[in-house]
Amino acid sequence: MTSQEASTTMTDTTARATLQHEDERVRVTRWDFEPGTRTGHHRHALAYVVVPVVDGTISAFAADGTVTESALRAGVSYARPAGGEHDVVNTGDAWLSFVEIEIKTDDERAPAA
Amino acid sequence: MTSQEASTTMTDTTARATLQHEDERVRVTRWDFEPGTRTGHHRHALAYVVVPVVDGTISAFAADGTVTESALRAGVSYARPAGGEHDVVNTGDAWLSFVEIEIKTDDERAPAA
Repeated sequence: MTSQEASTTMTDTTARATLQHEDERVRVTRWDFEPGTRTGHHRHALAYVVVPVVDGTISAFAADGTVTESALRAGVSYARPAGGEHDVVNTGDAWLSFVEIEIKTDDERAPAA
Repeated sequence: MTSQEASTTMTDTTARATLQHEDERVRVTRWDFEPGTRTGHHRHALAYVVVPVVDGTISAFAADGTVTESALRAGVSYARPAGGEHDVVNTGDAWLSFVEIEIKTDDERAPAA
């Protein structure tokens, strides 16, 4: 193994999450992905809107093995309901970033006992 | 007046609003501003999050004459409560775009009689 390979091996594979804002209604998180980095498997407890900051390509890996590739375009948002479960990977060859706006609801904030 | 001036005079001064998504929780609108174009005076009935798509400069003109200039950075969002009232103008020299996510609440959807 060359030192270059060693360095590559040690590179963190997790995308970087930056909390930009949170209040009783929303949580706003910016995600930055170097090529090949991923969110890790997660379940969306809240509905959310994604606003891509740049163009790019992501693949969502579901627990059942399904892979869904999506082309992102800067400023072309999309909305998803709660319940989705996946690992999101930057499968493009350039840095990628989007802002995720999670929408809180009364029910989600205070589930019935 | 040259034909170029005539053409400029006839240019629409209103920013372009594109509804990207709406459901019972959110309304997502993309705004595109050529230099000098404006939203027109409006009041925010809903709290909102803005995600700039590109860097730029906007000025918000309040009804009382106050002008607030803000530098926008692509992917650096900000959140504002309901109640704000202003006319937003692209005072930079380049095209500018942001995505606005308005957050609906039970109260705002069904105001008390």
